[in-house]
Amino acid sequence: MTWTAAAAGGTPYPSLSLIDQTALPHTLERLDVTTVDQLIDAIVRLVVRGAPAIGAAGGYGVALAMAQAEREGWGRDRLDAEIARVRAARPTAVNLMVCVDRVAARVDEGITAVLAEADAVVREDLEANHAMGAHGADWLLKRVGPGTDRPLRVLTHCNTGALATAGWGTALGVIRELHARGRIEAVYADETRPLLQGARLTAWELVQEGIPHYVQADGAAAGTILRGEVDAAIVGADRIAANGDTANKVGTVAVALACAHAGIPFMVAAPTTTVDLATATGDAIHIELRGEDEVLEWAGVRTAPAASRGHNPAFDVTPGSLVTALVTERGVLEVGAGELPGDRLK
Amino acid sequence: MTWTAAAAGGTPYPSLSLIDQTALPHTLERLDVTTVDQLIDAIVRLVVRGAPAIGAAGGYGVALAMAQAEREGWGRDRLDAEIARVRAARPTAVNLMVCVDRVAARVDEGITAVLAEADAVVREDLEANHAMGAHGADWLLKRVGPGTDRPLRVLTHCNTGALATAGWGTALGVIRELHARGRIEAVYADETRPLLQGARLTAWELVQEGIPHYVQADGAAAGTILRGEVDAAIVGADRIAANGDTANKVGTVAVALACAHAGIPFMVAAPTTTVDLATATGDAIHIELRGEDEVLEWAGVRTAPAASRGHNPAFDVTPGSLVTALVTERGVLEVGAGELPGDRLK
Repeated sequence: MTWTAAAAGGTPYPSLSLIDQTALPHTLERLDVTTVDQLIDAIVRLVVRGAPAIGAAGGYGVALAMAQAEREGWGRDRLDAEIARVRAARPTAVNLMVCVDRVAARVDEGITAVLAEADAVVREDLEANHAMGAHGADWLLKRVGPGTDRPLRVLTHCNTGALATAGWGTALGVIRELHARGRIEAVYADETRPLLQGARLTAWELVQEGIPHYVQADGAAAGTILRGEVDAAIVGADRIAANGDTANKVGTVAVALACAHAGIPFMVAAPTTTVDLATATGDAIHIELRGEDEVLEWAGVRTAPAASRGHNPAFDVTPGSLVTALVTERGVLEVGAGELPGDRLK
Repeated sequence: MTWTAAAAGGTPYPSLSLIDQTALPHTLERLDVTTVDQLIDAIVRLVVRGAPAIGAAGGYGVALAMAQAEREGWGRDRLDAEIARVRAARPTAVNLMVCVDRVAARVDEGITAVLAEADAVVREDLEANHAMGAHGADWLLKRVGPGTDRPLRVLTHCNTGALATAGWGTALGVIRELHARGRIEAVYADETRPLLQGARLTAWELVQEGIPHYVQADGAAAGTILRGEVDAAIVGADRIAANGDTANKVGTVAVALACAHAGIPFMVAAPTTTVDLATATGDAIHIELRGEDEVLEWAGVRTAPAASRGHNPAFDVTPGSLVTALVTERGVLEVGAGELPGDRLK
């Protein structure tokens, strides 16, 4: 995402330019948002998605709100209320709240300071992703097939790449690092229903990188793992509790259960900003229930009977006991073996 | 499915009339097949699907082949070869092979005897389904919440109802029996990617029966179970090995793993014809790999990038150790507790 100052070219106001992730993989379009309403709509419609990317967008959202306040003559109460709306645009990922709070703390210093803070969020996220990639790749290569130099077959769920972050990626960052070291044989990318972030976005990023991959139905993941076709699963996270319980895209916990049954590593890659030490366990994580139509329709065409209801939780919680390795920019915690975030990341 | 003798009305040849399951839930259409090629095409395209329904169609397929042999002057070698093609139309379910062999054993007695045998397959399947429904409902109500009479929340995967069988259903037959006893609160129907048998067919049958239900993404199943929203999962089977390992629609083993983790029953409902005592374990079950486009496209529109490959196993194998209860027309085997089909169903 890129911030554009006001009125230089076509846009009369300061704007945030976002890749429209709903249009991928077929067309690469950008959406320029200039108001709080437009930004919230973009977050809710998943034009921008992925916990770190939403966090960065929320940071720039504070600057958008300030520019709109100046244009429209909002008082401080209204400005604070609009920033709070950005902060609450999606409920599960902690990054959005953390980033908005961090950037909003500088509102009194003016928009230049706010933008500097939002830029710092992006820069730090990118650095964290590269560090995670190195830590995760080191750990996996030591754990899986030590003494050999065979390339690995890894499975991932949802999209955790450059699109979902400030750049490079979390789980997909580990995979890109493994690929850069010549150690990826193939990636199994779960399609990630209902919105197909895996088939549309992860596959698109893997094509850009020239990484061999297979798209599969989410239901295929556990069987592919149990048949021995995968060496490790690597996923991202939207919120991690102090005990290591991990909220991530719906479908993740089935991957974790299969890895545990097969005895292969289940790795979560996420920056420390995703760890919410104020949340003791996954039971306290609010799971967003999205609209029923996402599972009852496809591209606007109803697939289920008109009389059917839908159940559409956007996330699930993987017990920390099933998380073999949590990779952050600081290193690797073997959560399932007792290295809990609440003890190690204070 | 209904068999129509030759030339009474519109059809010049004997034909098998099938509900076209690819057109549901929006339109209820029938496809009349009169040749071996048409029948195999209908099986491969999933016009008719579900292990018992395919078995029944294969039985009538022997009669279709005999009628075509007479019209086209095939010798016995050609007839046998065409029957063998029907028998091999799909590789995973054992019912197709068993039913074709059973009916084909009467070819020497003429088409009337063959049709009588195919009719018997259908009649016995229907009776078996009703017996399974009663056994399964009895067992579940004793196991889940004994002493209460609260209705149950059950999860199912794929379609195992009247469409998938000769009528009534296997897993869905148990659910219908529970509903008839007033003991269903709600059914969670996994949509069952890639072909959405759950969203299209199971939901359609549940609507016909007036059973409250929610369609959910396959990836949601494990989380729904772990959050305590489900009392039991009930699924069908395409082939069951002597040790209880169960091949069923891809996605099933993730449901089984989640049930084991949550400590709720995972029930498999299937007639004894689905048990293949000649197969010692699930490792020996051939898993059909279907076309890549089923996961890369939707209704003919590509969803993944053009350069992406697909991985599309149609089934997975649930270890017998995870099968709490196997319900057949003969009763219930607690496979996970050591009641193995190879010992009990000889």
